[in-house]
Formats: sequence, C-alpha cells, structure tokens
Amino acid sequence: MHWNHKDLLDINQLNRKEVHALFEIAERFAEVNRRPVKKVPVLKGKSLVLFFAEPSTRTKTSFDIAAKRLSADTFSLTTTSSSLQKGETLKDTALTLQAMAPDAIVLRHQSSGAASFLAERLHCSVINAGDGRHAHPTQALLDGFTLRQAWGQDFSGKTVLILGDIAHSRVARSNIHLLTMLGANVRLCGPGTLLPTGVPTWPVTVFHDLTSACEGVDAIICLRLQLERQQAGLLPHLREYAMTYGLQASHLEKAASDVRILHPGPLNRGVEVSSTLADAGNSLILDQVASGVAVRMAVLYLYLTRESAPPAS
Amino acid sequence: MHWNHKDLLDINQLNRKEVHALFEIAERFAEVNRRPVKKVPVLKGKSLVLFFAEPSTRTKTSFDIAAKRLSADTFSLTTTSSSLQKGETLKDTALTLQAMAPDAIVLRHQSSGAASFLAERLHCSVINAGDGRHAHPTQALLDGFTLRQAWGQDFSGKTVLILGDIAHSRVARSNIHLLTMLGANVRLCGPGTLLPTGVPTWPVTVFHDLTSACEGVDAIICLRLQLERQQAGLLPHLREYAMTYGLQASHLEKAASDVRILHPGPLNRGVEVSSTLADAGNSLILDQVASGVAVRMAVLYLYLTRESAPPAS
Amino acid sequence: MHWNHKDLLDINQLNRKEVHALFEIAERFAEVNRRPVKKVPVLKGKSLVLFFAEPSTRTKTSFDIAAKRLSADTFSLTTTSSSLQKGETLKDTALTLQAMAPDAIVLRHQSSGAASFLAERLHCSVINAGDGRHAHPTQALLDGFTLRQAWGQDFSGKTVLILGDIAHSRVARSNIHLLTMLGANVRLCGPGTLLPTGVPTWPVTVFHDLTSACEGVDAIICLRLQLERQQAGLLPHLREYAMTYGLQASHLEKAASDVRILHPGPLNRGVEVSSTLADAGNSLILDQVASGVAVRMAVLYLYLTRESAPPAS
Repeated sequence: MHWNHKDLLDINQLNRKEVHALFEIAERFAEVNRRPVKKVPVLKGKSLVLFFAEPSTRTKTSFDIAAKRLSADTFSLTTTSSSLQKGETLKDTALTLQAMAPDAIVLRHQSSGAASFLAERLHCSVINAGDGRHAHPTQALLDGFTLRQAWGQDFSGKTVLILGDIAHSRVARSNIHLLTMLGANVRLCGPGTLLPTGVPTWPVTVFHDLTSACEGVDAIICLRLQLERQQAGLLPHLREYAMTYGLQASHLEKAASDVRILHPGPLNRGVEVSSTLADAGNSLILDQVASGVAVRMAVLYLYLTRESAPPAS
Repeated sequence: MHWNHKDLLDINQLNRKEVHALFEIAERFAEVNRRPVKKVPVLKGKSLVLFFAEPSTRTKTSFDIAAKRLSADTFSLTTTSSSLQKGETLKDTALTLQAMAPDAIVLRHQSSGAASFLAERLHCSVINAGDGRHAHPTQALLDGFTLRQAWGQDFSGKTVLILGDIAHSRVARSNIHLLTMLGANVRLCGPGTLLPTGVPTWPVTVFHDLTSACEGVDAIICLRLQLERQQAGLLPHLREYAMTYGLQASHLEKAASDVRILHPGPLNRGVEVSSTLADAGNSLILDQVASGVAVRMAVLYLYLTRESAPPAS
Repeated sequence: MHWNHKDLLDINQLNRKEVHALFEIAERFAEVNRRPVKKVPVLKGKSLVLFFAEPSTRTKTSFDIAAKRLSADTFSLTTTSSSLQKGETLKDTALTLQAMAPDAIVLRHQSSGAASFLAERLHCSVINAGDGRHAHPTQALLDGFTLRQAWGQDFSGKTVLILGDIAHSRVARSNIHLLTMLGANVRLCGPGTLLPTGVPTWPVTVFHDLTSACEGVDAIICLRLQLERQQAGLLPHLREYAMTYGLQASHLEKAASDVRILHPGPLNRGVEVSSTLADAGNSLILDQVASGVAVRMAVLYLYLTRESAPPAS
C-alpha cells in the first residue's frame, strides 16, 4: 500500500480504507508482540523524537516500545528538559529538532493545534500524541483496533457509548470520528457542564441519564476524569460524580450481554468505572494497552516508510 | 543450567548451588566487560522495563548498562514520569506495563513487599531492585561476587562485619542471607536505635563497640547512612555518629591484615568510612560497581532466557 | 589518522591539522545524515555516559543522536537523577561511572575545570560538553564546521564578530581559540560589564558600538543572553540591552554583503538578534544544529576508536 500522508494529526485525515489497511498491519505487528523475540528490522536507522510537553507514562512508553520493536532509535524530550523552559518558542524547538534530521517527531502538547502548527513547518513526519482538547488519533485507532479484535471489521449495527468529560476530551473527539467512519452509532453521556456547546451538530446521540444511555450498547468507552478540572469548578464533588456517572454493573442490565468496557487509562478506580467492572471478563482495558503498541508500530511503519516528500522550503 | 525461577525477589529464593552457578555466569560477563567491544547478542529482542519509584543513579544505570550489553532494549519509568502521580495504583501501573509485553520489570519501590506483590500478579519476570527495608538481592549478589573475586568461592572461616544502620537496610538483610548461605560468619555493629528488634533471632553476632567488632574480620560492609533518617530523630548528630561508628584505620588493628572494605554507595565520605580507607588498596568499593554490571547481566540472562512460564490467569 | 588525545577538554588541545582532519570526518558523517538510513556500525558495542549536571536539550540530544547513529549505546544522568543530590562528590560519581566501563563520559557541569578535573582521574575519555565559563569545544567545532561549509577551509582574510555576554560565555572563549587558529580575525562587542577583565591580552579587537563592530565582518556569532544574569545586576533591562546590542538589519549596512549570522541557541527572539535576521537566508542557525550532530559524530569516532591508553593506576 502506498501511504500518502506525511503527518498523523487527526482521524479525519484518513478514510475507511486506509484505517482498515492500518489495522491489518497492526494485526501483523500484534503477532510479532506475541513472539519470544519481539523485534523486526524494518525501521533500522530511522530516528524518532518523542517530544512530550505534557507528562505521560503510557503513551510515551507505548511509542518508545513500538519504535524499538521496529529497530528505530528514539530520543526523548520532556517539558522539564526542554528548551521551552528557556524561553524558546515551540516552532524554534521543532526546527532545531528537525535540523538533527529525525524521521518523525511524536508530539504531545497542551495546546489544541500544536501538532498541526508543526506539521505545516516541518518536512519530517509529525505524529500527534494528543494536542489540548483537539485530537488523539492513535488513542482512537487503538480503541478501534481493540473493538475490531472483539467484533471483526464490520462495526455496522454496533452502538458505542462514550461516557464522562466529553468537553475536555481529545479521546472523545477522535473516537467519534473513527467509530462513525467504521459504521458504529455513537452515544455520549455526561454532566451538562462537561458537554461541549457544539455537540448538537455532531453525529451522536446525547444522554444525560446513564441507565438510559447504556440501553442496548455494545461497548462503553469511559473517559478519564482529569481530577484537576474539579478545582476549576467544572466538576461536582468526586463522590457525587461517581454516584451519577461512574459506571456500575447495575447500569448494564439493558446493555448487550457481552458489552465491552474500555478506558484509556490511567484509571481512577471507583470514579469513572467500578473496580468490579474494570476487572471483569468483558473489560478490554488491558487489551487496549497491548493494542496501543501494535497500532503505534503500524503508524510508525506507514509514516516512516512512505516515499519521502521533498524538503519544505 | 535450567533456571526455575520467574522472579528474583530475595536471596532466600536461591540455594547455594544456584548462587554459584549465577556467579560463574557473572564471571563470563565480567570478561565481556573487559573487551573493547562489550556487547553480546544473547537478549536481542527482549525488552526490560526499569521502574524506579525511588530515585537511584547507580542501580538503574547498572541495570541499564547490563541490559544493553546483552542487546536488550530498556524502557525507564521514574516516580515523576509515572502514572502513579495521577492516582493510579501500583497494580494497575504494573498490569499496564505488562500489557506492553516486556520480558521483565525491574522494580525499585519504597514499600517492603512491592516486588513480591507484583510478582504474584504478573506473568513476566519481576526483578527486585530494592523494596523498602526488605530486600535488595542484586546488591547482595554483587557484594558476594566481589568478595568471591578476592577470596575464591569458599567463604567458610571468613567473618564479615556489616556496619551502620541495620534497621533500615535492605542491603544488610539480603547480605545476611547470602553470606551465611555461602559459609561466612556475619557480625553486625551499629547504634542500638539502628538495630532491628528481631535481631536476636538472626544468625549473626551483634556488637556495639566498633573496635571489638572489627577483631579478626576479613571484610567490612559499611552501610550507607540515609541522612534523612536524622531528621526523624533516629540518628545522633552526624559528627557524633561518625566519631563512634565511622570506620577508621585505627579500628582495624586487630582485623585480618588484608581486611576488605565495601560500601554500596553513594558514599558520604568521612561519615560511614574515612576517606583514607575508602581509597585504600583493600577497598573494594569500585570493584563492587564493576561487579554490579556483571552480576546484573547474569541475572537478566538467567531470568530472561528461562523457559517461559504459562501466562498467569 | 592516529588520534593521540584521550580527552576533549578545550580547543587549545588541538592543532590546525587535527581540526581539519576532524572536519573532514564530520563531512563524511554529514553525508550519512542525509541518507534515508542514517546509521553506521563503527561504534557498535561502545558505551557513552551523557552526564549533564546542567540542564540542556540540544547539546545532550545532539550527542545522543550522534552516538546512536554510530551504533553506540548511551546512558543519561541528569542533575536530578544523579547521586550528586545525595551528597556524593563529583569525583566519586565519576569513578563509579567509570567502574561500569563506559568508553567515554560526556560532561556538562556548572564549574569551570570540571571536565579537566575528571579527565585527570579517569582512564576513559572525557568529552567536555561545557564547563562553567571555561570551554565548550564541540560548540566551537560545530560553529567552525558550519562556517567552513559556507566558506571553504581557508578562513584567512575573514573577520568574525562575537556579540553579547562575552564574560560568562564558554562559547566565546572556545570560538576565539578556534577561529584564530583557522586564520580568521576575531572581534568582540558587548557592554563593558559583560567583557572579561583579561580581554586586552586576547588576540581580538574589542568594540563597544555595534554598528562599527559590524563594518566589514563576514560572520557574526550572537551569544545567548542567560536571562538569569539580569537578576544578578549584570545586565541592563532586556529591552535596553536589545536596543543597543540586539542585532538588527540596520547594523549590517557596512558588513560583507553575504554576512552570516550564527547563534548557539536556544534563541531569545528579538533580544540577541531580530526575528527577521534569525530567519533570513544568510542565517546559519539551523545549519549549526545539523553541523552539531556531524561534528559530534566525528568527535566520538576519533576519541572512541583511538588506541586505548593503559588504565590509570
């Protein structure tokens, strides 16, 4: 397959055929990850900068493992180590990094649009690992890939509920794009203060009552509650939130019998989802983590072996 | 040699024959470390997570170098980078890491029992790099290996003094297990407040006077004084401690003429041991560091090439 | 070429012939950095400790990328992770690192002379990545290499202006050595409080007026203003500084028509140099970054493949 994209900024850059092609490559890498020797030489001599201006354990480690399993070299920059602290602009930091000739920069940044801003200015690939409230395409891809392993590739007729703080969630935005593209129906549920104002124009159904929202659903993606939002007065008291929007077994009585539970992690047990459900047989939370490595291997493979674009002027 | 252990949690999991087998493999890797090209491909494609919830330079770097000399890939998590800060439990962090399919997790943690807690829950290997006051098996193994290089493999008739803050020391606990298993007599010396209450049941002789404790000893392991203990009122003033329990040449008049001095580092010069002794010809402090890399190479080799156990349910 | 040096501490250790030999090797590695697969096996099995006791993004990443492109393994120590925080002396930390048998230690340290202090005590190579106000030899080499790519190898008849805080700048000191060795004339310009007292004995011409200083110059190296100096009362107000010593197009009217602009980064846009000049066609700021990787590859290659010296006693 010829891959035409320099950058992965959001799901809406991809069409359904491309997503399925990416998933098929991820399947092959998932198989590599089950071998005793989990390493293939396809990206030997490629270098990847992991530029995380927001803290993250799992996404950064997931990309790092993915890169090294493909034999690429990785270089980490974090907020505290970065020249951003010395007053350098994001653009200058990025141009500096690019001058060291990496093949791609994986960027996490607190500002929506940061990845896109860099992608316009750099000729190396930019992979968005989360930008503000905007997008987190590899998270959506790994969620989709995890559901595909459970359901097969046809999502038509499936209903997925996204639950929690939709307003601040790049995970929700990217998943809505991906899941509707793959043919699923998407529902949202959360407190009114945590629903974005533009939501009526989205291809989703909104619920405020969790029990009704769960009726007939095939999967529920619980979003992480950023506890620091509470201080900003956007969240009710945690216990109150958990009582109303924390997912419990009792909410699932009218859901599909094999309803799948997902959460991007890290999990606040007993807040977004009960401990019992998080550990239950139909929880896919750890499958998501494993899928993350395979999907990121596929992303790195596709973007770093595409035919090189000519350098930007 | 067939290695039956999934995890290295403490010395008491190993028998004398296994310890000697491990030491013989470490000898071979020590030879690799003296070559111009210090790298062998035995763990190519294996991945190791270095999960250090307590800060550490030398232990982490030692494991990292050991792993890379065996061609394994390493991934570091530290307290500050870790999701533990975001409220995730140790178990969830570990299950998440495991889902990324590493071959082993090296864990340092402030809680006694943390490594064992994880080992019960994970099917990948867990290597304890220090858990609270409990155990630090690779430190004991490198101390034993260092003494073996000086003495040969038979420790019978040798007397080793462990000096300092025994109560808070995982190094002391693991060394007592190892040294007695290898046939040495073990003595302890330190202020009463820094001796654990259970010490009368241990296979050791306790001294409170340092000069008497040194009489006839063949090696002295000085423990690091954690300066932060002083604030908790458990230590006398540093200068007073150093005057009474800081090892000086004058204490060694009745020790064996070739008495060896060890210290796990980092050294507080003039506190646990005088600068003169630390730098003297019979100081093995830097040999311990070199042994550390060789012993950890042997540990990683044995635990990561054992026949895989079936996944935990 | 037989390389006789164990350590790279400052430019004055090298003669003109050696600098040109190093530049020719850097040219070859610059070519490697333009390939799709940017990796050669020349340092496979070598290990490099990156010991940065002062924060740095670009220098550390540049060394890290350089090392990995030569297939060496790298190990990072930073201030916060280091045992220096636990009260260990620099010498003990370094002896400990050396006992792990790395092939070289790259050191950045706030104290002038730190690299030299270690080099005397270690038998592995020490590469100075900046020590206090003293020296930053790889920065000077990359600046020289960048100018050589623009000018060819003969610098005679060229005039280079170094502009800014000369007093606190290791970059200025190392560049004065290198540029005069290569045959260029060197000028300095900066406020009187930021010129070192010894400057009359240096092989340079001093200017206080920026427009005069720029007359006829072929290149200008703008130094980074360490903003924290301002608090110490050594700098005037930033805006005032920028008005008098910030480089602008208007200063360049009598400079060579193709005058080159350099800056070691990170850049305070509008302070040391105007944004327009920093982004102009004759700015070499990003070339410097690319040169940095190639020059450090040459340095690592030469110092790590020299015939090994016998271990220090």
